[in-house]
Amino acid sequence: MMTPTVDIATRVYNHKWKIDPIVRSLIDTDFYKLLMCQSVFRNRPDTNVTFSLINRTTRIRLADLIDEGELREQLDYVRGLSLTRGESTWLRGNTFYGKRQMFRPDFMEFLENLRLPAYHLEKRDGQYELTFEGKWPEVMLWEIPALAIIMELRSRAVLKDLGRFELQVLYARAMTRIWEKIEKLRELGPDLRIADFGTRRRHSFLWQDWCAQAMIEGLGAPRFTGTSNCLIAMRRDIEAIGTNAHELPMVYAALAETDEELRQAPYRVLADWHEEHDGNLRMILPDTYGTKGFLEHAPDWLAKWTGIRIDSGDPAEGAETAISWWKSRGEDPRDKLIIFSDGLDVAKMTELFHRFSGRVKVSFGWGTLLTNDFRGLVPGDGLAPFSLVCKAVAAEGKPTVKLSDNPEKATGPKDLIQRYRKVFDVGQQQRMDVVV
Amino acid sequence: MMTPTVDIATRVYNHKWKIDPIVRSLIDTDFYKLLMCQSVFRNRPDTNVTFSLINRTTRIRLADLIDEGELREQLDYVRGLSLTRGESTWLRGNTFYGKRQMFRPDFMEFLENLRLPAYHLEKRDGQYELTFEGKWPEVMLWEIPALAIIMELRSRAVLKDLGRFELQVLYARAMTRIWEKIEKLRELGPDLRIADFGTRRRHSFLWQDWCAQAMIEGLGAPRFTGTSNCLIAMRRDIEAIGTNAHELPMVYAALAETDEELRQAPYRVLADWHEEHDGNLRMILPDTYGTKGFLEHAPDWLAKWTGIRIDSGDPAEGAETAISWWKSRGEDPRDKLIIFSDGLDVAKMTELFHRFSGRVKVSFGWGTLLTNDFRGLVPGDGLAPFSLVCKAVAAEGKPTVKLSDNPEKATGPKDLIQRYRKVFDVGQQQRMDVVV
Repeated sequence: MMTPTVDIATRVYNHKWKIDPIVRSLIDTDFYKLLMCQSVFRNRPDTNVTFSLINRTTRIRLADLIDEGELREQLDYVRGLSLTRGESTWLRGNTFYGKRQMFRPDFMEFLENLRLPAYHLEKRDGQYELTFEGKWPEVMLWEIPALAIIMELRSRAVLKDLGRFELQVLYARAMTRIWEKIEKLRELGPDLRIADFGTRRRHSFLWQDWCAQAMIEGLGAPRFTGTSNCLIAMRRDIEAIGTNAHELPMVYAALAETDEELRQAPYRVLADWHEEHDGNLRMILPDTYGTKGFLEHAPDWLAKWTGIRIDSGDPAEGAETAISWWKSRGEDPRDKLIIFSDGLDVAKMTELFHRFSGRVKVSFGWGTLLTNDFRGLVPGDGLAPFSLVCKAVAAEGKPTVKLSDNPEKATGPKDLIQRYRKVFDVGQQQRMDVVV
Repeated sequence: MMTPTVDIATRVYNHKWKIDPIVRSLIDTDFYKLLMCQSVFRNRPDTNVTFSLINRTTRIRLADLIDEGELREQLDYVRGLSLTRGESTWLRGNTFYGKRQMFRPDFMEFLENLRLPAYHLEKRDGQYELTFEGKWPEVMLWEIPALAIIMELRSRAVLKDLGRFELQVLYARAMTRIWEKIEKLRELGPDLRIADFGTRRRHSFLWQDWCAQAMIEGLGAPRFTGTSNCLIAMRRDIEAIGTNAHELPMVYAALAETDEELRQAPYRVLADWHEEHDGNLRMILPDTYGTKGFLEHAPDWLAKWTGIRIDSGDPAEGAETAISWWKSRGEDPRDKLIIFSDGLDVAKMTELFHRFSGRVKVSFGWGTLLTNDFRGLVPGDGLAPFSLVCKAVAAEGKPTVKLSDNPEKATGPKDLIQRYRKVFDVGQQQRMDVVV
């Protein structure tokens, strides 16, 4: 009676899988991808874009670690996915940020019929060149599954030679580490607001799900505000969190014909967004082409928005810039929300929390160091997180550019980076190491 | 498909249990209890004995922690157990220490028909008085289940208010701790010999089972020599380990009529044992009434035995005494085995290993700090191991006495302790703290 029960049917069922799929649902993705997809579907449905995988940590030779056949199987599996009835019901019926039917019927119909488009994969210099081309609303949904697949295949490659108890102890250590972080966060008191933003660079799906549950038990609502991952939000009955990201201004900017159109592109994005959304969804992400210039030249209606997300550069400096800007536009910063989301861990969040609580509403989007902190847990540190992104690199054949508030994070052709720096009046920027 | 499968039948089956039984098998006990039981069954089957629980750590008020009803349910459950066919087959058919049919048919028949006798339980001063009276071969088999039940009920009492993730992280920390100990032991090289002796003071059955499996993966044979626990030995297909313990000389001594009979009692025990067993089972446990006197007065045939187990006093000193004794009897200590088994942890084992390897064959019986090291893992240190024993306190109405090589471990009435100290010529003894 003490023998662990073997559920024979489950074992037989599992044997039927040719692979162990990493991404098993189209909503195992970040919520903001769906929000942006709806916006794109409405405003730029026929734009052709190219997304591409970029491993900023080139010393990690992904093509040597990950078998190409396995990678193709995982990507092919995702191409076979479609929205299930239950997922559709959840998206159609759920309340997001207190709003019902956030997703319009025409968009839901598009999503229900969607299959992800083809991918292009080849090896070069020990890395994978993985690109996706096609209509923007379809291609953009590859970003998160592509990242999650690469991240988890890399975890599996590193773990495959470990024994059963070595594995158990590895996870025991990782769990202990996360729990100790949560215990420290709890010391920040009842005003803490923090969400899981760790889908894209997670160690694995099951691990992200464990981390989210640990946050539910360790912090709970309202301190744990929810997760960016729709599938986990649905399964664990918590809020799906997110608004918009750099890809919108990057593609809008690439499509601009003139310098003036280019200069206006980031505002055009938010004007489109403004029409669609209100309240908590009106979050400014100002750093695509430099926060300082963006805010200086921003139209007044943007100052009425709910808040700003700070995703690059020195976060305290970014927050001070935002606070000054709101003041200069006659807004009370205490009514405004700042979401920090760049490379956070407990020490940094604690520092930012103490510095800005009371001056603005503070919230954190905790990513890689929540869902993938296996640093130092295997010999050679083979599970340490690394900097992998999947970005829109071109729109209608024209390259995209991102500057951000850290020149180390800039992407795009060198000459175009120069042009953008001039158009957006980006001065000297502080170089900062990109951790994750 | 990712939802954890619920095996409905198992859940329904589990709901039918009125309690969650701690000891679910008569062979969830130490192997040496069965060996001793066979010896007693042959040599002293009709002796009446009393076993009694003794909590040496009086600050832990067990009767306040553990509900009396629950304790009775667990003890009653054990009284309902009988040897299963599979257990009987394993005991009858298995090879122990290379010997087949170690258990004689008449003893196996006794064991197959055995039900544990009644117990007597009452509360006094925040402790439980738990005693067992009856025929020695029956009563003696209460020792291990009684200890395991009290230990695990105490663990449950401390853990019952913890959340799901707090529990998971608690075990994650404990697992990490054990694994780090095993990694350190691995550094001692291929000559290490170590067994699990942790049944009696284990945190729980499942935890002991986990620890044994970790030892299998982390050390493996021949370094991990096996476990004292018969059920785990059977389930995990490893050696059952053990020989004899203090209860034999304690009861033989209590039955002695004269000082001379008393003086001879410990040797009488081993003479009976000598007839029954050879090889690895011929282990001397010399400390019941002081190691020094025991060895000085020992008959020469005892020096031919395989080795000595050192279970109290300073272990290095005990080992030196043993080595000198073998030399004085013309034996080569390098052919002899010393098993250390008193309150061991990694640092002490490492020290003893380095000091005695090459001079004798060294082996360790690792107990409480293998299977119950939860020190510091809950607030108030409520899971720290403590010193609980279940001993033969009387035989045919006469109290038993144990002196050991540490006066802190002496048990019995004060006047009798004085008499025994005189008869066995025990001089000044070094007081040592009893950790576990």
